[in-house]
Amino acid sequence: MIDTIRELAKKTDEKILMVVLDGVGGLPLELGGDTELASAKTPNLDALARTSQLGAVELVAAGITPGSGPGHLSLFGYDPLRFVVGRGALSAVGIGVKLSAGDVAVRGNFATLMDGRIIEDRRAGRPSDAKNAEIVATLRGTIQTINGIPVEIYTESEHRFVVVFRAQGTPLGANLSDVDPQETGVAPLVAAGHDEASTPTAALVNAFVAQAEVALKGEPQVNGVLFRGYSDVPHFPSFQDIYQLRAACIASYPMYKGLASLVGMDVLDVQGEEDALQGKVDALKTHWAEYDFFYFHVKKTDSTGEDGDFAAKVKKIELFDALLPQLLALEPDVICIVGDHSTPSKLSTHSWHPVPLLIRSQYGRRDPAVRYTEDEALNGSLGLRRGTDVMPLLMANALKLQKYGA
Amino acid sequence: MIDTIRELAKKTDEKILMVVLDGVGGLPLELGGDTELASAKTPNLDALARTSQLGAVELVAAGITPGSGPGHLSLFGYDPLRFVVGRGALSAVGIGVKLSAGDVAVRGNFATLMDGRIIEDRRAGRPSDAKNAEIVATLRGTIQTINGIPVEIYTESEHRFVVVFRAQGTPLGANLSDVDPQETGVAPLVAAGHDEASTPTAALVNAFVAQAEVALKGEPQVNGVLFRGYSDVPHFPSFQDIYQLRAACIASYPMYKGLASLVGMDVLDVQGEEDALQGKVDALKTHWAEYDFFYFHVKKTDSTGEDGDFAAKVKKIELFDALLPQLLALEPDVICIVGDHSTPSKLSTHSWHPVPLLIRSQYGRRDPAVRYTEDEALNGSLGLRRGTDVMPLLMANALKLQKYGA
Repeated sequence: MIDTIRELAKKTDEKILMVVLDGVGGLPLELGGDTELASAKTPNLDALARTSQLGAVELVAAGITPGSGPGHLSLFGYDPLRFVVGRGALSAVGIGVKLSAGDVAVRGNFATLMDGRIIEDRRAGRPSDAKNAEIVATLRGTIQTINGIPVEIYTESEHRFVVVFRAQGTPLGANLSDVDPQETGVAPLVAAGHDEASTPTAALVNAFVAQAEVALKGEPQVNGVLFRGYSDVPHFPSFQDIYQLRAACIASYPMYKGLASLVGMDVLDVQGEEDALQGKVDALKTHWAEYDFFYFHVKKTDSTGEDGDFAAKVKKIELFDALLPQLLALEPDVICIVGDHSTPSKLSTHSWHPVPLLIRSQYGRRDPAVRYTEDEALNGSLGLRRGTDVMPLLMANALKLQKYGA
Repeated sequence: MIDTIRELAKKTDEKILMVVLDGVGGLPLELGGDTELASAKTPNLDALARTSQLGAVELVAAGITPGSGPGHLSLFGYDPLRFVVGRGALSAVGIGVKLSAGDVAVRGNFATLMDGRIIEDRRAGRPSDAKNAEIVATLRGTIQTINGIPVEIYTESEHRFVVVFRAQGTPLGANLSDVDPQETGVAPLVAAGHDEASTPTAALVNAFVAQAEVALKGEPQVNGVLFRGYSDVPHFPSFQDIYQLRAACIASYPMYKGLASLVGMDVLDVQGEEDALQGKVDALKTHWAEYDFFYFHVKKTDSTGEDGDFAAKVKKIELFDALLPQLLALEPDVICIVGDHSTPSKLSTHSWHPVPLLIRSQYGRRDPAVRYTEDEALNGSLGLRRGTDVMPLLMANALKLQKYGA
């Protein structure tokens, strides 16, 4: 599909604003009740819905709960079953580390080793993030390069950290076996390269393991490292190229900025702490003239769902609603409001349920929707669809797709 | 998709009950009227529908009328366009004959041959099942082994019979040409193996044809055999392995037990004659603790549709409705009610129309349905879907699928 869209896409002056309310889809606490969206007081969204087209979107496939990566890739038009971001790369992206061609990112766990290098705990007792940062500082003090390859070490969270090997000329391969045996009572495995380009990477990994154990000898609990999931830089066709769009990302958290950057969007500076909603709106206003596609990310609708806090999620939806008039005042030719997955407070985690999709342009048919809710979405004129349908629909509504065939 | 599901599936204590009402979808006798489901008085299904999610399911694809095999495979999550059970194997499965690795099952027609072995009737005047059994007995009397290979002969119905060649050590190939020329006025063809393993099978088939003609020389009408459709044992990835489920089949008829067994379900004993509904419920109660997935098959909704008996089909639906409280009393975490295809009395045969799907779990959104009917299904929150979506949705609703990607 992406190749067809690329052939049909054309530059126009129309502007598209895609608002992703992270994890916005929900569930009623009791069967038959109201979801978070249905409970929220959203006069501005309601008014918008009355002249919009609604639909329901499955990001990956029926029954599949999307992670943030696959959810967003789907919204950007990349089939998440085909375009896969490796664990190491996603971790790097998630903490804001840029990868270049030839680099390898590796996901690591701190572990507790007993005498004879036998693994006692694969997660080193789940250290605090602060302890993790302290250990990372120790390792940075002793490991800067291995075999002439610069090595970067980053805290992810708890027992998780990320190592990036920076290729010098020759690209490093990422096709090698794990150090993590995924069980306790045995020693860490020795990594082996599965192809020529990955043999030097395996040597780097094995040297890192040995040097880290020396550096962490004095530590009672965090005294070993395990590696699982090696990735080179995922090379996706460029968003700007496929859609002929000057595209910008407005987000606060590294994961979302990283994903947008991965597909080739410009990542704009956002002022403010945490979700920084007003800072995002300000960035949008500042750069409105420069781009014709904006991906505008709102995080807290997801975080409150993950916390299992129904009332707080309702509040975050209402906060966004209060902000909406500022977005509409910019008069985007096409505005889309959608989620990258559902995060029902009832489940305190992502879920498989479809997310409501709203598209407003001058070219919509009559639609029964009077609110932006899950119920209305399922009744909407856009039907139940895959997430990869969203970008083609936005492009069409912006009159940016030529006719297919004569 | 099956590989993705396999990666994401995890064991939990939740129990899933999938009720397949065979051929349950119907049609109104007059345009605009009620279907069999809509005509039936179903207080228990109605009550269940009020707290369930409904949708409509196409088992194979738009406009395609599924046989029982493809319909069930789709419900079990196997794309029926990709996972094909050969004619011979399906016939064997349908009459309850177990195949082992290396065996070949062949579908045969009795035919009428004129002088010079010219085919006069490819169906031998459609003999009765009793006549078929008599002919099979004659053949069994003269053909027990060919070239040291045990040969089994079974009545299917009318002019159809099944032959199983039991491999002795070396597997038999099933890649050979037909004996049936699919026209009259010509002689039966000589089977030829298309590969090394199938050459001995072709010799068996040609010897069978010759020996059968000798044995049936005295018969005026049923005096020849034609073969079409050779199958070795279909080897599908195991249902229990894909879904991490201990899965049991509760059915009365050989075809359904055979299909369930083919994908690796345990087939439970059911006491009672014919559809044996109460026997099935008893089996379900007896084994409730041992499994976490039950496929529960109800046959008569299809049989009455095939008979073109609208009122009788309505009755069979009402019979199931009366039984439903016993199923619900077991408190399955997820209950699903669905069909393997439609069998409208108006058509007296399977049809392409979507079947209504009902899923009840604690994680459903509000759904407008107040009955389990075709109308309500099309309005339901699950939308119109492929049959292969059913298992992922059941797994998700049972919280048995991990998140896809981070």
